[in-house]
Amino acid sequence: MPRLRLALGQTNPVVGDLDGNAKQILAAAKRAAAAGADLFAVGEMALSGYPIEDLASRPSFLVASHDHVVHLAKQLLDAGLGDLPVIVGHPDGPYEPRLLGTSNAPTAIAQNRASVLQHGHVKAQYAKHHLPNYSVFDEYRIFIPGDELLVLRIKGADVALIICEDLWRDGGPVAKVLEADAGLLVVINASPFERDKDDVRLPLVTRRAVETDTIVAYVNIVGGQDDLVFDGDSVVVSQTGEILARAPQFEEHLLVVDLDVAEASDSELPEKVLRVELASTSSAADVIEPDIASLPDDREQVWNALVLGLRDYVEKNGFPSVVLGVSGGIDSSVVAAIAADAVGADRVYGIAMPSKYSSDGSVDDASELAKRIGFHYSVQPIADLVAPIEEQLKLTGVAAENVQARVRGMIWMAESNLHGHLALTNGNKTEISVGYSTIYGDAAGGFAPIKDVPKTLVWELARWRNEHAEALGETAPIPVASIEKPPSAELRPDQTDQDTLPPYELLDAILEAYVTQKLGRADIIALGFDADIVDFVTRLVDRAEWKRRQGAIGPKISGMAFGRDRRLPITYRPNNEPLPGAQTRS
Amino acid sequence: MPRLRLALGQTNPVVGDLDGNAKQILAAAKRAAAAGADLFAVGEMALSGYPIEDLASRPSFLVASHDHVVHLAKQLLDAGLGDLPVIVGHPDGPYEPRLLGTSNAPTAIAQNRASVLQHGHVKAQYAKHHLPNYSVFDEYRIFIPGDELLVLRIKGADVALIICEDLWRDGGPVAKVLEADAGLLVVINASPFERDKDDVRLPLVTRRAVETDTIVAYVNIVGGQDDLVFDGDSVVVSQTGEILARAPQFEEHLLVVDLDVAEASDSELPEKVLRVELASTSSAADVIEPDIASLPDDREQVWNALVLGLRDYVEKNGFPSVVLGVSGGIDSSVVAAIAADAVGADRVYGIAMPSKYSSDGSVDDASELAKRIGFHYSVQPIADLVAPIEEQLKLTGVAAENVQARVRGMIWMAESNLHGHLALTNGNKTEISVGYSTIYGDAAGGFAPIKDVPKTLVWELARWRNEHAEALGETAPIPVASIEKPPSAELRPDQTDQDTLPPYELLDAILEAYVTQKLGRADIIALGFDADIVDFVTRLVDRAEWKRRQGAIGPKISGMAFGRDRRLPITYRPNNEPLPGAQTRS
Repeated sequence: MPRLRLALGQTNPVVGDLDGNAKQILAAAKRAAAAGADLFAVGEMALSGYPIEDLASRPSFLVASHDHVVHLAKQLLDAGLGDLPVIVGHPDGPYEPRLLGTSNAPTAIAQNRASVLQHGHVKAQYAKHHLPNYSVFDEYRIFIPGDELLVLRIKGADVALIICEDLWRDGGPVAKVLEADAGLLVVINASPFERDKDDVRLPLVTRRAVETDTIVAYVNIVGGQDDLVFDGDSVVVSQTGEILARAPQFEEHLLVVDLDVAEASDSELPEKVLRVELASTSSAADVIEPDIASLPDDREQVWNALVLGLRDYVEKNGFPSVVLGVSGGIDSSVVAAIAADAVGADRVYGIAMPSKYSSDGSVDDASELAKRIGFHYSVQPIADLVAPIEEQLKLTGVAAENVQARVRGMIWMAESNLHGHLALTNGNKTEISVGYSTIYGDAAGGFAPIKDVPKTLVWELARWRNEHAEALGETAPIPVASIEKPPSAELRPDQTDQDTLPPYELLDAILEAYVTQKLGRADIIALGFDADIVDFVTRLVDRAEWKRRQGAIGPKISGMAFGRDRRLPITYRPNNEPLPGAQTRS
Repeated sequence: MPRLRLALGQTNPVVGDLDGNAKQILAAAKRAAAAGADLFAVGEMALSGYPIEDLASRPSFLVASHDHVVHLAKQLLDAGLGDLPVIVGHPDGPYEPRLLGTSNAPTAIAQNRASVLQHGHVKAQYAKHHLPNYSVFDEYRIFIPGDELLVLRIKGADVALIICEDLWRDGGPVAKVLEADAGLLVVINASPFERDKDDVRLPLVTRRAVETDTIVAYVNIVGGQDDLVFDGDSVVVSQTGEILARAPQFEEHLLVVDLDVAEASDSELPEKVLRVELASTSSAADVIEPDIASLPDDREQVWNALVLGLRDYVEKNGFPSVVLGVSGGIDSSVVAAIAADAVGADRVYGIAMPSKYSSDGSVDDASELAKRIGFHYSVQPIADLVAPIEEQLKLTGVAAENVQARVRGMIWMAESNLHGHLALTNGNKTEISVGYSTIYGDAAGGFAPIKDVPKTLVWELARWRNEHAEALGETAPIPVASIEKPPSAELRPDQTDQDTLPPYELLDAILEAYVTQKLGRADIIALGFDADIVDFVTRLVDRAEWKRRQGAIGPKISGMAFGRDRRLPITYRPNNEPLPGAQTRS
């Protein structure tokens, strides 16, 4: 049986940065070659970053991508790595448009490809067959599907190559892997993190390995890109379903593993399978002990995803620092802790902005948080700024409450304008669901770290982060009072969230049914929830769509995040209901 | 030759409002029957509104849609219209999911269908084959394609039925129309307005009529739905390419026309064609003179689209009124005039908010605008509100300028909160392209009426609207000074837009190349533009993406509007460029 030393490069690309991403790949290839690899693969679109969205419809971008692949092959040769076959994902084109639609319509002109580089040339290419066009993915919009399977013959073994979604679908190239009798299947991926996705992804990889009687090597990119966080978690699974190697989540990594791959046969190839022979590298004499990382528990995974999502937004966009409002409440405390973990406390600026309704306890909690975490802390009371506005405009009620929130948002945006900080906004998924926030006020900011975290999970994460610190002998970052006191917006005397909203446990359960499970009113009531509360909550959700459309992006951690995952009209009149209005409630 | 009296109902549905939309269809069907129609058709998704987006993935919504179609058939029967065949577009499902993707992935469970109702029953159905998944459309995401053509035999004539995109694609059901030898092709549509789309749509309808040797009847919905405006413009074209009937743009209409349709033959049907025989209605004795509306010129079409887009957003969401800031500048003047045309001047509230940098001329122009249009006008000076903030936060430069804009936004949002007004924001496409606005300041609002109108077109529209008024003997709404003075944000002494930006003619030309034509840097320079200016402008566009993501929706009038039309990453590092930053500039 041929022994192949396979290296998988879990790189962290920046969308659009072809030069920088090529450098990352080159650096990882050098390490792979130094480790004696016979074959090296990086993730889907590792050269361009992912998702590139409608950049795929710019011919100049496709030409540049293509040129960079060709150039990367030469760079590898120049670096003395010409012998090492390198598999790299990238967009390619422009090709003849797939669709003959309206003359106005943009049509797909790109393919989602993997190129195999060796000896300074592109030796072979594979184009993704199955284009995900659900959830956050719009690949059918931008890519032309491929229809041929690629098999590489290396050192007497046959290595089939597919891309991401191809693995998930029955039939198509996966079916051909078995027919072609390949010994190793390399799948390059750009698969974003979701809670519990590891409960789906690893079993899938395992099932495919067993079904196709092939070792499956799954390499994923890592890093934050806008609202997605790619978790890496690259893995190699044997034909019997055994994990042979696994890279850690949420960090760049080179995974190297020795594989005994079935000998290639010379039976006839099935239709639509292309086999390309590659020159062999010299074999390593030693045997490598591969990494087999284990996954931490759910809360730690979520925390790590939120931290990486924020860190990469900050770093990839070149912000020196972040600013946020700290109220002493649980949301801002958790966001401050995430921010400090992401970029270091010395790049975090927290501002307490007490009003005449803020309790002393709140300011104490905020100051205690600052002390525990060590971020830059300042206080800007808002009473003298709000009073002239309230007076001149004769404001009362909700309009007056909103002005307090908007003056606060104006303060952190001004600090952002003065110092270049990225402004963070502290809204959690529950309040974003029901619109319990002031647009242009507390919702103001460029990034929303806990946007996809329901309130009940915010508390869980706070507790976990404190326990985690204590287990390491560090100071727990979040004051206990912030976790335990009843949540309040403190916009009027003695206000609590539950004056307006159902208890959070109940609210989150209804939101799970309505938003995530997409159940209708009757189905939710059939689960045992009170009809009036269901009507109240679902109406709030519908009416807050206009605010969500104007909300900051934030890391997706669930199977149904607000944003590209859930595309709903603002103007929407639920059947049998009176006019909902759309923008008055803010 | 059988003579068919065809009625096309250009209705204005509200997304989700199955009851209300069914009532519209029923009312139009009554008028069609009263006019002696043999066949009546309304637009694509006329029962549910369009686009329904991910409502198509809620099983309860699909069941409700299906039930409403069945119920509509009975309502037609009960209203004594049982004999009239009625073609109605609607979503249907849930069906077995099309995709076997990840277990987490939402999969299409709906079809985009047309039902033929007669005698209280659904007699036949057609499912759309070609699912547009470009520009603003995401139909491949949400619908399962059909694969059969439907032919209705009515009064000895064969009437083929297809849906919207099916007409645009060669092959598929259009090719079968010729094979099936149908005499009339009914196409139901939900086709949004774009400038110059009539230059594409009518020639297409004409070409298909000639190609398939079939009369083509094209019925479109009308009305605003979020950022889309459906223009109606339903039309019937003969086999020789003659326009037989045409409905006016931008209004509800019943178009009735007598057609001499080729006699049906009994030749064998091609594969995948279903023929359904319908009972005939009694023939009308008279001959109807059909409407043949003509289109107004480009500027008037655009104006009408903007007016209808705003009106329907207001009315469908139940707002009593609108509020906007009026600065005396061209943008707010045009928005005020659109608003008055949309909902009447007595439902428009304009607020002048002079700062210490505002010229007397500006306030005079705003007040003159109010007088000419007749909207509610008030003045809220901002100096006393801005001063305490500037002082407490020690603001200078851009940070101070932004605070002025944010105080203004806070004022109209407070008025919105107090009175339920929809807040309008006055940004034009040029400034939204380059981010020349203050987020949470002048960009604050629920709807942006001129969001897709470049600055140069804003001026053209202002001039056109004034000329139009004068031609009708009415007061020109927009003061000449607002059109002719140099544009300025008036956030610092003697500021003009051209301190910061290239001249608008030049800027709009570069934006057309970069945003609309999707050209790369080198291609734009090759058109003859200065390289430094191209770099300056394209960088501004890239860096403003985060602001656009948080911007209000507004009516799409171009082939490339910001929003669903143009999906680009925020985090994006153009190749060979230094870090662009993403959120500092605001």
